Amino acid sequence: MIDQNRIAAANARQEADLRADYDALAHQLDRRGVNIERITEAVMAFGVAVPSWGVGTGGTRFARFPGPGEPRHIFDKLEDCAVIQDLTATTPRVSLHFPWDQVEDMDGLFESGRALGLAFDAVNSNTFQDHPADPRHPLSYKFGSLSHTDPAVRQQAVEHNVLCIELGRKVGANALTVWIGDGSNFPGQAHFARAFERYVESMQAVHGDLPEGWKLFLEHKIHEPAFYSTVIQDWGSSLMAAQAIGPAAHCLVDLGHHAPNVNIEMIVARLAAAGRLGGFHFNDSKYGDDDLDAGSIDPFRLFLVFNELVDAERRGLAGFAPAYMLDQSHNVTDPIESLMTSAIEVARAYAQALIVDRASLDQHQEANDVMLAAQTLKRAFTTDVTPILAMARARKGAAIDPLAVYRASGYRRQVAEIRPAAKGGGGGIV
Amino acid sequence: MIDQNRIAAANARQEADLRADYDALAHQLDRRGVNIERITEAVMAFGVAVPSWGVGTGGTRFARFPGPGEPRHIFDKLEDCAVIQDLTATTPRVSLHFPWDQVEDMDGLFESGRALGLAFDAVNSNTFQDHPADPRHPLSYKFGSLSHTDPAVRQQAVEHNVLCIELGRKVGANALTVWIGDGSNFPGQAHFARAFERYVESMQAVHGDLPEGWKLFLEHKIHEPAFYSTVIQDWGSSLMAAQAIGPAAHCLVDLGHHAPNVNIEMIVARLAAAGRLGGFHFNDSKYGDDDLDAGSIDPFRLFLVFNELVDAERRGLAGFAPAYMLDQSHNVTDPIESLMTSAIEVARAYAQALIVDRASLDQHQEANDVMLAAQTLKRAFTTDVTPILAMARARKGAAIDPLAVYRASGYRRQVAEIRPAAKGGGGGIV
Amino acid sequence: MIDQNRIAAANARQEADLRADYDALAHQLDRRGVNIERITEAVMAFGVAVPSWGVGTGGTRFARFPGPGEPRHIFDKLEDCAVIQDLTATTPRVSLHFPWDQVEDMDGLFESGRALGLAFDAVNSNTFQDHPADPRHPLSYKFGSLSHTDPAVRQQAVEHNVLCIELGRKVGANALTVWIGDGSNFPGQAHFARAFERYVESMQAVHGDLPEGWKLFLEHKIHEPAFYSTVIQDWGSSLMAAQAIGPAAHCLVDLGHHAPNVNIEMIVARLAAAGRLGGFHFNDSKYGDDDLDAGSIDPFRLFLVFNELVDAERRGLAGFAPAYMLDQSHNVTDPIESLMTSAIEVARAYAQALIVDRASLDQHQEANDVMLAAQTLKRAFTTDVTPILAMARARKGAAIDPLAVYRASGYRRQVAEIRPAAKGGGGGIV
Amino acid sequence: MIDQNRIAAANARQEADLRADYDALAHQLDRRGVNIERITEAVMAFGVAVPSWGVGTGGTRFARFPGPGEPRHIFDKLEDCAVIQDLTATTPRVSLHFPWDQVEDMDGLFESGRALGLAFDAVNSNTFQDHPADPRHPLSYKFGSLSHTDPAVRQQAVEHNVLCIELGRKVGANALTVWIGDGSNFPGQAHFARAFERYVESMQAVHGDLPEGWKLFLEHKIHEPAFYSTVIQDWGSSLMAAQAIGPAAHCLVDLGHHAPNVNIEMIVARLAAAGRLGGFHFNDSKYGDDDLDAGSIDPFRLFLVFNELVDAERRGLAGFAPAYMLDQSHNVTDPIESLMTSAIEVARAYAQALIVDRASLDQHQEANDVMLAAQTLKRAFTTDVTPILAMARARKGAAIDPLAVYRASGYRRQVAEIRPAAKGGGGGIV
Repeated sequence: MIDQNRIAAANARQEADLRADYDALAHQLDRRGVNIERITEAVMAFGVAVPSWGVGTGGTRFARFPGPGEPRHIFDKLEDCAVIQDLTATTPRVSLHFPWDQVEDMDGLFESGRALGLAFDAVNSNTFQDHPADPRHPLSYKFGSLSHTDPAVRQQAVEHNVLCIELGRKVGANALTVWIGDGSNFPGQAHFARAFERYVESMQAVHGDLPEGWKLFLEHKIHEPAFYSTVIQDWGSSLMAAQAIGPAAHCLVDLGHHAPNVNIEMIVARLAAAGRLGGFHFNDSKYGDDDLDAGSIDPFRLFLVFNELVDAERRGLAGFAPAYMLDQSHNVTDPIESLMTSAIEVARAYAQALIVDRASLDQHQEANDVMLAAQTLKRAFTTDVTPILAMARARKGAAIDPLAVYRASGYRRQVAEIRPAAKGGGGGIV
Repeated sequence: MIDQNRIAAANARQEADLRADYDALAHQLDRRGVNIERITEAVMAFGVAVPSWGVGTGGTRFARFPGPGEPRHIFDKLEDCAVIQDLTATTPRVSLHFPWDQVEDMDGLFESGRALGLAFDAVNSNTFQDHPADPRHPLSYKFGSLSHTDPAVRQQAVEHNVLCIELGRKVGANALTVWIGDGSNFPGQAHFARAFERYVESMQAVHGDLPEGWKLFLEHKIHEPAFYSTVIQDWGSSLMAAQAIGPAAHCLVDLGHHAPNVNIEMIVARLAAAGRLGGFHFNDSKYGDDDLDAGSIDPFRLFLVFNELVDAERRGLAGFAPAYMLDQSHNVTDPIESLMTSAIEVARAYAQALIVDRASLDQHQEANDVMLAAQTLKRAFTTDVTPILAMARARKGAAIDPLAVYRASGYRRQVAEIRPAAKGGGGGIV
Repeated sequence: MIDQNRIAAANARQEADLRADYDALAHQLDRRGVNIERITEAVMAFGVAVPSWGVGTGGTRFARFPGPGEPRHIFDKLEDCAVIQDLTATTPRVSLHFPWDQVEDMDGLFESGRALGLAFDAVNSNTFQDHPADPRHPLSYKFGSLSHTDPAVRQQAVEHNVLCIELGRKVGANALTVWIGDGSNFPGQAHFARAFERYVESMQAVHGDLPEGWKLFLEHKIHEPAFYSTVIQDWGSSLMAAQAIGPAAHCLVDLGHHAPNVNIEMIVARLAAAGRLGGFHFNDSKYGDDDLDAGSIDPFRLFLVFNELVDAERRGLAGFAPAYMLDQSHNVTDPIESLMTSAIEVARAYAQALIVDRASLDQHQEANDVMLAAQTLKRAFTTDVTPILAMARARKGAAIDPLAVYRASGYRRQVAEIRPAAKGGGGGIV
Repeated sequence: MIDQNRIAAANARQEADLRADYDALAHQLDRRGVNIERITEAVMAFGVAVPSWGVGTGGTRFARFPGPGEPRHIFDKLEDCAVIQDLTATTPRVSLHFPWDQVEDMDGLFESGRALGLAFDAVNSNTFQDHPADPRHPLSYKFGSLSHTDPAVRQQAVEHNVLCIELGRKVGANALTVWIGDGSNFPGQAHFARAFERYVESMQAVHGDLPEGWKLFLEHKIHEPAFYSTVIQDWGSSLMAAQAIGPAAHCLVDLGHHAPNVNIEMIVARLAAAGRLGGFHFNDSKYGDDDLDAGSIDPFRLFLVFNELVDAERRGLAGFAPAYMLDQSHNVTDPIESLMTSAIEVARAYAQALIVDRASLDQHQEANDVMLAAQTLKRAFTTDVTPILAMARARKGAAIDPLAVYRASGYRRQVAEIRPAAKGGGGGIV
């Protein structure tokens, strides 16, 4: 979607400066025993999936303020995703959401992606909204879906998930992410134990329909849209459920779905140890499920998460292969800019985690040399790996400065001419 | 809206039981030095305003699931409000929200209210949404309203607030509540100090237009819709702003707008001491601005708030006259039922606070007899004042059991026949 | 420890009033389909253990302000515990803490308890402090105990726990509660996965030494004394560990050991469903592990916990038999008064949970009649069960008004004459 | 305390590498329009005070695990502080705490400091502990100090603060920091409004005794040691109090004294705007008042605080001159190492804030170019300013690698031979 010549020309202007910064960093890392080329190669091999819904402007229950050129459908969205991948070379896959992205011709969708250089990651089902236009959805999810007291509603929700698997197969996905809004707003509204049992039973049915090699991701969340209790409210419930559902069930960690103060990197370690770490929805947050750009609020936390991931990989935990995906809501920025930036910040955390001197860290941990252990880890974070990230992009034909090239390209202006202005509002969901 | 005979007939069936419970409680309170009749009289004089928007089903950014018979406009809403007042005699006033409730004939609206036995409380402005249909609103509030960097947007927002005052005058209101969504989602997006200065300047302009006897309520909130910073984020900023804006400016406390763990009753005491406690938006919450039914999650906290209010009243703080309003979002219940229940729970907390033995409490506090002080306060809370609340309703011609009478009345079914089914959805504001 | 005649005389003066209140409540409950006598009987059978350390004045890292008559040793503590049981008949068991309560003659300790009418509950080990006076404790727990990197420290900690079991056997206990302070203060200090593995291995060794019929309670805590990470930080880790350790391992829930906003009653339901709910440390908190008196901050939460317990019992979950214990720190009250009050508040929550109309609740939950479900549950909480609690005490020979009788008895004054004034301070642990 | 030759020799070995890194950074910053020398000069002029109590090992209510060579008294502490300043040249002042640091010969103390190259910052009073050894402290602070219900206790607390001022004058301090533990553990224990009034009245008395040019710092804290309410619980109460107390009263911000999720940098902006920002107690925290090393948990937050400070300075707010002090508890590290590291991290945040391109930031903020505003700010944070910090130290004769020089010096081992082993424990304040 972005002219390669434009990228190349821009890179050419910045190449010398990048080379200088890169070489200086190479020397510094070399003194610290780190070969910069191995880090750069690892970053080049790294990718994080983009959520199809992330290229549209998000909103809150109070309002939504769309920007120019909002994508009208999945084909528009794919084009926006391709822009992100063209400029960052960090987002090779797109995660679809049904029914939002469902089209008659799913094979054609797959081809459209391929033509744009995009593959497809885990697909997402949706039983947190009603689907009034869909004759297969006559029943409402107002009081729950997979955990509903009415078996007919549960059955409808199971069938929707099964359909999502089918649709996902057609585009080459190999995982289904299930996030439900089921829960309660009042003490007494729901019976905790029974709701959980019903959820597990429904998910076992979905699990039974998984194709060979597929994974089933369970996404927990402490609250919202339910405000007193949520059926899968934390990683403990998620793990209990995954173990009960079956071997393909894995737990997905969204960084914004936890109680205040919770140590998320420790949860990552626990789920990895349990053999059930499925993957991530990356974003950042200050208060709740704020869905802000990855690394924008607490970049050290993001680094600490990747520290666990790199460590788990290094220890060779059996079956350790978490899926990485962005899941954000862009309310005040151009979504393409936010997703490019976020993908780079995720890669930054990964690069920083890679340069941790793990032999020293191990040694200091074993010896309870707290200060040196802490400094060994922190030193990787204070290192400015920007040149590594830029060099990795440049080597893959993407932009040294993706944001500048994107703005110069006029892409947003062009699509705004084609795509009609979206309606804002939000109207009274207060 | 509810047949008085229906209420009377239902009350007649429950009167004897109520009398028995009431008498038993009267005896018990008498032993504790409390005259039940004085409490009942105070409860009869108590009222809390109902928000016009509260009679519609709320929602989250994920979805909205409307119920049958959703009100179409302010006249429908007034009828629903009248049902609440008919059955509880606790909600004599309605709080309007503009532009949602704006009509050509505001005088007619006032008359409609009067005919239904309803008066009008503080009016609310709305600059957290765009008003695309309004030619006086050509500019977007996407990046702020009263604190926007662009003076033209600020001016538009000021004019909207001035219009709200004008509309409010026509229905006999005497206060304007200003809640803005202004803030930022990224560190760096906004300049904290300048945004605050612009807000104060805009509000000074609004203040300058207040009619004699009016109050201006500032509503603070820690986050949402802005997820990194909010211009009026807490009571400290609210008080600073109120003092800078002018003498009619007062701080409004919404129980769900605080950081986790915060001691809200202490904030009430502080604002009362500062002479700037404007009033309340009552609701309950477990996680954030959950907008759940008053007293449904932490009834003791609601009691502790009223303990401060009754105490402040007793000490005769100059100008102490806070406004009480419900502000909730009813996502899974019939809004009329939730508002009736919530009004009763607010009255319950008030009644409990009234039976605190304040002479003993004072004495134990002075003597640092911590245990007796705590028990003196707690004893009022553990007392079941249900008979007092029911008796107060019955004496005012309202229902001993409002919920049962409401359901038996068939009101919801009847309006559902008249009012068309509302569209649900929520569509992608994720 | 308290003269039975004194209690009887005091009760005699209050009997008529209690009878009047009790009868009035009986009539009301009867109308609601509840037989008060069955509730009273259940309350009479209910007991919660008192922690031996709870009868001393607690403190913070900043200071400790002892009161008069602080117990000098476990025998003094037992006497204080007997006062609590004499007056409330709700605390028949004492929970010991080693090495604090270790004496040469453990058989004598058992006899002392029996003579005072007291039995012994779960015993507690202590590896969060060093034991400089104990030759079996040459190594420091500064950097951990059961999860320490040094196998010698782990071995020392295991042996201490094995000793605790032995000591517990001598007094008739049948459970060991293990709470450790192990964790880290800096990112990088500890390797999360390895620390957990070491903990599990150590606990497996302890588990191997459990006598027939004993349980091993794992107590999780989100933070403090470690401020970045804790080895058993939440119920998820606790459950993972319990499952790895062995069948006798169960999870213990302390109400103050969770992240802000967490729904604790749901955790209770989950652990019950997993068959690993071991028991409770009751207390209350507003901010963290505040260790305040049970029910003093959020009494509705305590009720909701008991609602789960009564429900689990009713559903007949296999092996469901949680242990109940108070665990509080009394910094500004007479500990005896706080423990009496807390035991009564725990019993209050139990009694309220017993009068929930569960058939109606089930029905409303199944029908998604959210409002009636919520009201059915809440109605039990707003009921003033004070007369039931008082009657249960009176029938067991304890006091209708334990606090008044305690104060009139002069017990504190008497022991203050015998027991030397304790040193306060706190000195610099800031 | 540390041999200058040792420092110089170590620096000599690292100078070439530092120069290379510094030059590379200089080039990069130059391209970004930043003159590295101006940043280095500003860092050289920067200092943060060290708390005298910070050089001892801290602890929790559960235990304290002292390390070797704990300082016995203020003279030992001064030596430890001198080590920190010798090696970092970032901590030229020491903050004293009375009565802990009170000596007969305060003039001699001043001279000792001068001989070690140390001056004295704000002094701290202590009315959160009893002073049993002090005949001027016959009364207990168990139930409060400056806000106590008993005027005699308040008077005693006022006199202690007046004495602290006197002691501070002798060592050249010019500010008094007042942090009190006053508050309550139970709803009902304290009367919020009266306690606040008593506090203000007491502080007015202290304020009246301030010498010319002195400031009075009020330190707020949300909880601990009081667990239900605190008299000065947040910045709003602190500001209200400061305004009532007098012109020299200013608000001091401790980074760990806030509710979860609170935006502290915004509080900094508000207090600066109110002209009452007194200064800081720097530390870091994940859960509460964890008192961890500055920048160890959320380094981006520390940067954002300094971003406000640099911005306020640049805007030339009248009287803007906040005091900077560390206030931490070192439980598992050598306190000297933690304080050196923390001082450097504070300087790091300052240096990063200095390289923010403020002209661009202003422009993007005004234009609501959210992404570029955010990136402009963030780019300063991702920059590795380590070479600037090291160069600033080297130029002042301090160590390029303070930790390595400290360890090589054998200082801790030497003082451990002189200073007797400290007693650990913690004994039962649970």
